[in-house]
Amino acid sequence: MPIRLDSADPDFEQRFVQLLEGKREASQDVNDTVAAIIADVRRRGDVAVVELTNKFDRSHVAPDTLAISADEIARAAASVPDTIRAALQTAHDRIWAHHVKQKPEDHIYTDHLGVTLGTRWTPVDAVGIYVPGGLASYPSSVLMNAVPAQVAGVARIAMVVPTPNGEINPAILLAAQIAGVTEIYRIGGAQAVAALAYGTASIARVDKVVGPGNAYVATAKRQVFGQVGIDMIAGPSEVLVIADGSANPAWVAADLIAQAEHGAGAQSILVTTEKGLADTVAAEVDRQLALLPKQEIARQGWDEFGAIITVASLDEAALLANRIASEHVELAINDPQGLLPAIRHAGAIFLGHHTPEAIGDYVGGSNHVLPTARSARFASGLGVLDFMKRTSILGCDPSSLSALSEAAVTIAEVEALHGHGQSISIRLNR
Amino acid sequence: MPIRLDSADPDFEQRFVQLLEGKREASQDVNDTVAAIIADVRRRGDVAVVELTNKFDRSHVAPDTLAISADEIARAAASVPDTIRAALQTAHDRIWAHHVKQKPEDHIYTDHLGVTLGTRWTPVDAVGIYVPGGLASYPSSVLMNAVPAQVAGVARIAMVVPTPNGEINPAILLAAQIAGVTEIYRIGGAQAVAALAYGTASIARVDKVVGPGNAYVATAKRQVFGQVGIDMIAGPSEVLVIADGSANPAWVAADLIAQAEHGAGAQSILVTTEKGLADTVAAEVDRQLALLPKQEIARQGWDEFGAIITVASLDEAALLANRIASEHVELAINDPQGLLPAIRHAGAIFLGHHTPEAIGDYVGGSNHVLPTARSARFASGLGVLDFMKRTSILGCDPSSLSALSEAAVTIAEVEALHGHGQSISIRLNR
Repeated sequence: MPIRLDSADPDFEQRFVQLLEGKREASQDVNDTVAAIIADVRRRGDVAVVELTNKFDRSHVAPDTLAISADEIARAAASVPDTIRAALQTAHDRIWAHHVKQKPEDHIYTDHLGVTLGTRWTPVDAVGIYVPGGLASYPSSVLMNAVPAQVAGVARIAMVVPTPNGEINPAILLAAQIAGVTEIYRIGGAQAVAALAYGTASIARVDKVVGPGNAYVATAKRQVFGQVGIDMIAGPSEVLVIADGSANPAWVAADLIAQAEHGAGAQSILVTTEKGLADTVAAEVDRQLALLPKQEIARQGWDEFGAIITVASLDEAALLANRIASEHVELAINDPQGLLPAIRHAGAIFLGHHTPEAIGDYVGGSNHVLPTARSARFASGLGVLDFMKRTSILGCDPSSLSALSEAAVTIAEVEALHGHGQSISIRLNR
Repeated sequence: MPIRLDSADPDFEQRFVQLLEGKREASQDVNDTVAAIIADVRRRGDVAVVELTNKFDRSHVAPDTLAISADEIARAAASVPDTIRAALQTAHDRIWAHHVKQKPEDHIYTDHLGVTLGTRWTPVDAVGIYVPGGLASYPSSVLMNAVPAQVAGVARIAMVVPTPNGEINPAILLAAQIAGVTEIYRIGGAQAVAALAYGTASIARVDKVVGPGNAYVATAKRQVFGQVGIDMIAGPSEVLVIADGSANPAWVAADLIAQAEHGAGAQSILVTTEKGLADTVAAEVDRQLALLPKQEIARQGWDEFGAIITVASLDEAALLANRIASEHVELAINDPQGLLPAIRHAGAIFLGHHTPEAIGDYVGGSNHVLPTARSARFASGLGVLDFMKRTSILGCDPSSLSALSEAAVTIAEVEALHGHGQSISIRLNR
């Protein structure tokens, strides 16, 4: 059974904090193991990558078969039914159309002193995309990671995907084909992150590594951060549904189940102003779970991490939502636009009764790689900006340099950086 | 003596890679020490912070004197001469005026199917700014970190600054006063980062920690990443000056010295098309160094990490610049605008003979917190966007949900997420 809280209960604050701070992942300390793997890949390159891959993935790769060949990609992609190809193409095109609008513009101007100031955006040269293998190997994630990189203008995209027992979901390779990703390696784990970050004889190093993974992948990303850029440390997925009396309990229940079926610590929370709705939704979840194929994962997730919270008002719901800072927030209420400004911390917000979170996972057009574990307090979903970087531009002429020199030299002296002051003074005609 | 390379030399590539990969910092493995400090602060809160501060900073703080009082800030600030106040105020106002232009705009639109899509920006609630103590304690850095946060609309800015032997540069407190930062703690090191990330009884936790620091601070930031956001892992400062025959050798020499005087692994590189200029600049550096107060640090930095590279053309200079991906790139050439598009990887670019890098450190208006150690390949300087985050907005009506449903349900089935498909199908009237 999910926990039930009411904001009017005397122990509400304490129990809410427990919910907020509850761990949903076994915190595995794999720091030393990962550090050893990274050091090994740096030292022995392909040899280490091959050994580790054959060991952990029970496969039989050699340095010259680390890359998945163009033939193999084409064959796998061709084996996927046309309906799936069409669906992934629709997803690709909608993701592309939305992300194109995120492309930033340079802004360079001259101020009243004649100083040229500005910001110029350029793409990262080479990006590595980590795609998990096994259960959570999703073709939609290939699109969500690759398309923003393509839109940004990244010249080289290298994808890695582990193939446990040599197996790979052909839809993954189809998605890569649709996204135009042609460089794919059958490797995973910390060894794949290390190979991308430092390079080997057969895998050229990249500048940034993105994509979700298990504890080894997350720890490896943390350790190589600085050598390369990384996107974020992904945690279990989560949804917060805010519902009022206008909500359809069956629809809300379906959305809570959709989140819970991710398993691995995924969390579904309902916050509602209606005690009656809370009860009906709880019953609906049970009813729908019984009809779901693979119901065990979803039921376990809902029982272990689910929560139903009743509140006095939508304003109060918004306050809780900001403390939870959920990856996904659904506004299953009569006036979603009205509450929107009050929800400040969320990865993505879904407006109204006809926007199930799952539509955003696939074909809405927005990105489904979003900040988890309360990191929406400070982080954003994946987008085009993650594959670009800003360069500052500054230009003075003799007159503007002269106008600024006194203040600059004064600060240089305060900071005891006399060479800094001298580099300005030497340019002045006095 | 700095190293001298010529791109025409047969061993150039090998020696250039050596330069590129040369370590400029002792790589201290302080992971375990830092992990223990963070765990201690999480467990014992203020008591741990006070103990560690009194031990490492040889000071005498208690939980109720961790915060620097409003009185103390006012007194210190008032003790600073008016010329310095005026210079810092000028810097503040110019940094503010430039960063205001970085404020992003929300973009929400409806597509041809009737789907509402968009990006909304909101500020981070609370930010911690780390300001180093001792030698590299710069009032300008207070402004460069605090002003973008203020412009972003961050409601709470908490600053930490270690006060070794109980001492603090009053100009640091003046800069905080000018920037409107009123919450300041006299703590530093990993314990300060831990207190900001997890909170103690007297220091409320923040959502993001920014600012440079030593190996302990950098490692602590890496370890708390995820619990809070961080800006970057800062390394030694660096400049790359690209000069042609139009450059003034004395000015170029002054800029190379200004960078080298940061010490601690700071690196100055000159790339020039003119062999004669290379020789003259080398001699000028020696001449000017002899006149510099505190010349030892700059001389040591220049001798140990400095480099002069002669190349055949400015195009070749740009290629090398992109491989070096320097924090600062000066274009001391006749046509800086002409070369600008070719320089793709740089934290900041300084245009022409009258833009010494030092002007950007203080009063140019652009930010001086910039990516180091080749991270300009994937990272940007500090700006307003670092203190905000994007939330995706998605909204469907019955008609647009229906139009998207087939593709979405198809992908859900491919991914074996039947609950996802069900959350869409259940909303369709059939």
